[in-house]
Amino acid sequence: MFIRNAWYIAAWAHEIGSKPLARIICNEAVVIYRDQGGRIGILEDRCCHRGTPLRFGEVVDNGLQCGYHGLVFDVDGRCVEIPRQERIPAKARVRSFPAVEKDEFIWVWMGDPAAADQGKIIDYPWHNDYKKWPHKHARYDIKGNYMLMVDNLMDLTHLGYVHRNTIGGNPKVHVEAKMQVTPTENGLHYIRWLLDSTPPPTYVKAAGFTGKVDRWQEFEYFAPGCIIQWSGALAVGRGAQVNREQEGGFQLRLFHGLTPATEDSCHYFWSTANGYRQDDPQATEQLYTEIDTAFQEDKAIVEAQQARLAETGYDGLVDIVSDSARVHMRRTVDRLIEAESKSTSGELTTA
Amino acid sequence: MFIRNAWYIAAWAHEIGSKPLARIICNEAVVIYRDQGGRIGILEDRCCHRGTPLRFGEVVDNGLQCGYHGLVFDVDGRCVEIPRQERIPAKARVRSFPAVEKDEFIWVWMGDPAAADQGKIIDYPWHNDYKKWPHKHARYDIKGNYMLMVDNLMDLTHLGYVHRNTIGGNPKVHVEAKMQVTPTENGLHYIRWLLDSTPPPTYVKAAGFTGKVDRWQEFEYFAPGCIIQWSGALAVGRGAQVNREQEGGFQLRLFHGLTPATEDSCHYFWSTANGYRQDDPQATEQLYTEIDTAFQEDKAIVEAQQARLAETGYDGLVDIVSDSARVHMRRTVDRLIEAESKSTSGELTTA
Amino acid sequence: MFIRNAWYIAAWAHEIGSKPLARIICNEAVVIYRDQGGRIGILEDRCCHRGTPLRFGEVVDNGLQCGYHGLVFDVDGRCVEIPRQERIPAKARVRSFPAVEKDEFIWVWMGDPAAADQGKIIDYPWHNDYKKWPHKHARYDIKGNYMLMVDNLMDLTHLGYVHRNTIGGNPKVHVEAKMQVTPTENGLHYIRWLLDSTPPPTYVKAAGFTGKVDRWQEFEYFAPGCIIQWSGALAVGRGAQVNREQEGGFQLRLFHGLTPATEDSCHYFWSTANGYRQDDPQATEQLYTEIDTAFQEDKAIVEAQQARLAETGYDGLVDIVSDSARVHMRRTVDRLIEAESKSTSGELTTA
Repeated sequence: MFIRNAWYIAAWAHEIGSKPLARIICNEAVVIYRDQGGRIGILEDRCCHRGTPLRFGEVVDNGLQCGYHGLVFDVDGRCVEIPRQERIPAKARVRSFPAVEKDEFIWVWMGDPAAADQGKIIDYPWHNDYKKWPHKHARYDIKGNYMLMVDNLMDLTHLGYVHRNTIGGNPKVHVEAKMQVTPTENGLHYIRWLLDSTPPPTYVKAAGFTGKVDRWQEFEYFAPGCIIQWSGALAVGRGAQVNREQEGGFQLRLFHGLTPATEDSCHYFWSTANGYRQDDPQATEQLYTEIDTAFQEDKAIVEAQQARLAETGYDGLVDIVSDSARVHMRRTVDRLIEAESKSTSGELTTA
Repeated sequence: MFIRNAWYIAAWAHEIGSKPLARIICNEAVVIYRDQGGRIGILEDRCCHRGTPLRFGEVVDNGLQCGYHGLVFDVDGRCVEIPRQERIPAKARVRSFPAVEKDEFIWVWMGDPAAADQGKIIDYPWHNDYKKWPHKHARYDIKGNYMLMVDNLMDLTHLGYVHRNTIGGNPKVHVEAKMQVTPTENGLHYIRWLLDSTPPPTYVKAAGFTGKVDRWQEFEYFAPGCIIQWSGALAVGRGAQVNREQEGGFQLRLFHGLTPATEDSCHYFWSTANGYRQDDPQATEQLYTEIDTAFQEDKAIVEAQQARLAETGYDGLVDIVSDSARVHMRRTVDRLIEAESKSTSGELTTA
Repeated sequence: MFIRNAWYIAAWAHEIGSKPLARIICNEAVVIYRDQGGRIGILEDRCCHRGTPLRFGEVVDNGLQCGYHGLVFDVDGRCVEIPRQERIPAKARVRSFPAVEKDEFIWVWMGDPAAADQGKIIDYPWHNDYKKWPHKHARYDIKGNYMLMVDNLMDLTHLGYVHRNTIGGNPKVHVEAKMQVTPTENGLHYIRWLLDSTPPPTYVKAAGFTGKVDRWQEFEYFAPGCIIQWSGALAVGRGAQVNREQEGGFQLRLFHGLTPATEDSCHYFWSTANGYRQDDPQATEQLYTEIDTAFQEDKAIVEAQQARLAETGYDGLVDIVSDSARVHMRRTVDRLIEAESKSTSGELTTA
């Protein structure tokens, strides 16, 4: 069961060029295209004539043309052309989903269209600032429920085990980190300080630290699937806890967008921005490569976890002290699902 | 649900040599072999001893010998030998299906054997005339219900979209073709005339047309799965509508045989015969290659359509003007299924 | 349905080194590891924290550490460490299965732990005698129920068909062999004598026979999944039936251990020991290669049989004269399953 009345990331904006793109989102097979006026259409990927996926079609003057018998659909899903036929029946249409292009993302609303408030889409201004925050995008197909990936990002004690040799470093450092969790209107915020700690290999490689650092990891979670991260370190003694915006340290911004595909798979959209050597494209590339290596480690373990939970369910699992943010996050999502299932619009939009 | 009291193509005759061949037909796993007397046996692919597939066996003096413990079955499915055992119990047998070899096809009857009338097998004499109609065979495994492939052949407006760059050509030409549909006893006949039209790339390559042509596509459908096609073109002014049997144009004969494998897969047996440069084996080969390229385009789109319909069903689909022959065909098949399910033999033969 | 109160082979001892090993046994996903004291632990492959498979973990001082958030489990499945947390709740544990290392095998008991009597593990002393019985191990993943593999070994008439070109030879020889079956407390014993027979290619290659031989195949079956085989041949006239322990012939010992994985798959552990040219490592290797080739033939046919039986069930199958040992074996297993399902411990251990 997914929250449907929410904005999810459907694609990176750059993915939607002249060809339609197929994707599964919240158990719906959709096709995403950009019409010749630049508008984004997100349609059910099924022609209303013979059920053919519209991803085989092509973008023509008046919309997306089915590749089988030539019907054309506009960004709202209306059939605007049937070859050989003058009258187009009203029922000749496919379902469409509200779509918004913003901050290099294509956002989609899979629930009740009447409730789709663009004002609720979160901002990520760093995507529009290549000068100060040069960055690079990625998308993974994860064979795991999107909540397992959110879980992963809510409990960073995994860094010492899963990422021991990449972005993690010594497990003890992570286990002993000071963690402060604050509930927000629609999620939670947490910050962890690893004071006077040994920087992990990635940090040393990037910023050339020679001694201990004060390191922070700040996460803001927006239910159901988005997380904004700001991490970094300054050498001990430079007062990182008072002012993190100093030169000469290491810092990065990460965006994590988890979008449900099916119950046991999801899309992981992430970007990483280099906030320490902005004039060096190699640094941006190197950062991306390091993060990619680490996130592939997460992918592997979450996919194995998914496979096991699909067989056994969640019975008998035991929460531990490190789970505080994760448990809060899960409660938030459960509350939103419950609220949605009680509302009238919830009834309308359940698949 | 399939029509079972009907002749389907089980194999090309040349496929059945010294080794048994396994195939799924109407949800039954069968093994096809030719005994040492030349007779064709089509048997349930399951030894009655331990269930081992007979396709692992080999053809011996008295029939097909199971490759596990040596039992032998004749073309009627009777066990004729059990190693180490003198008496063969009556229940030691496997199911057999009526089989006929004709016109380079192996035909099979999957329904009530008592109703298997060989006289109802359609004729395809062009397979026996390599001089006038040199030809070549193919077989595809299609991951789609056989009816979706029949649908495909009943509505040629797809040529302009699916085959734009191969046998199709300009969509407008196909959409505007004059089409005449005539019901027949067991199917339908249609002919389309594309008068004064630009010939598609395949036609030009084959016959060297330099100007417009009068082009025809004549199809006869025999329910449930066979279609005989005669297509061609003559230069405008040569009176194609009065006499199509002239030299110097382009014409081909295509046989399409669709045999159900499972609900979501089928066998597509087709042959293409060169009726314009019969003395040139390269022309036959080139024609085959062109058709093969185009039919792979159909295969791709039908398989995508199948996958989608398997997920969503047929709800909400809208018929359009171009669907006249297709709709007639579907009604014919539905009528035959209904008739079969009401008859006594229908009860006996339902799997 | 499997017998659970029984010792099965979980692994070869040499497979359990410094890394945990995952395996499915009787429908349970387990992880096998050797702790730093050398003890074998066989645990449910699912951390009790977040369900992550423990096979991603590593062996540390006090047990097996989960690779996600660092919980540690000892060989009895008790959680002995939770990072960041002092008190370990009693429910923080994973299921463990009794394990014994003996004769180069790791044995496991998947049923009621209270009933796990190590004294009931069969002996295979030849694994401890590399001088007289140099040998080599193998393990196959078989896509077939383990009983189909036991069936295979209970009816050797298949040698003439499945292994005609390897260890089998002429079918008639096998069909006419004298076979003596004797029930035992927990299975059966049989011996077949192929007197005055032509030795098969493998035997000739190994021992250089130039004429006919007296050949024996002696099998002892221990329900549910172990078979000890002693096969060989001496030249005719050397009195093989009186004394098989002579120099100058051919003999081998084979161990067959079938362990259920799922209803349609199993592990096949086998070893083959060279009892005729013990000082020649090439002979041991050559024997292994020959047996491996033959057993791959069994694997192929049993997997095809499994696939077919999974579709059709066992209805309509007919027993034949050669099935005597196989039928006795099946009855033994059915009796054990019935006894287990009636006992109290059976109730406790059913998955």
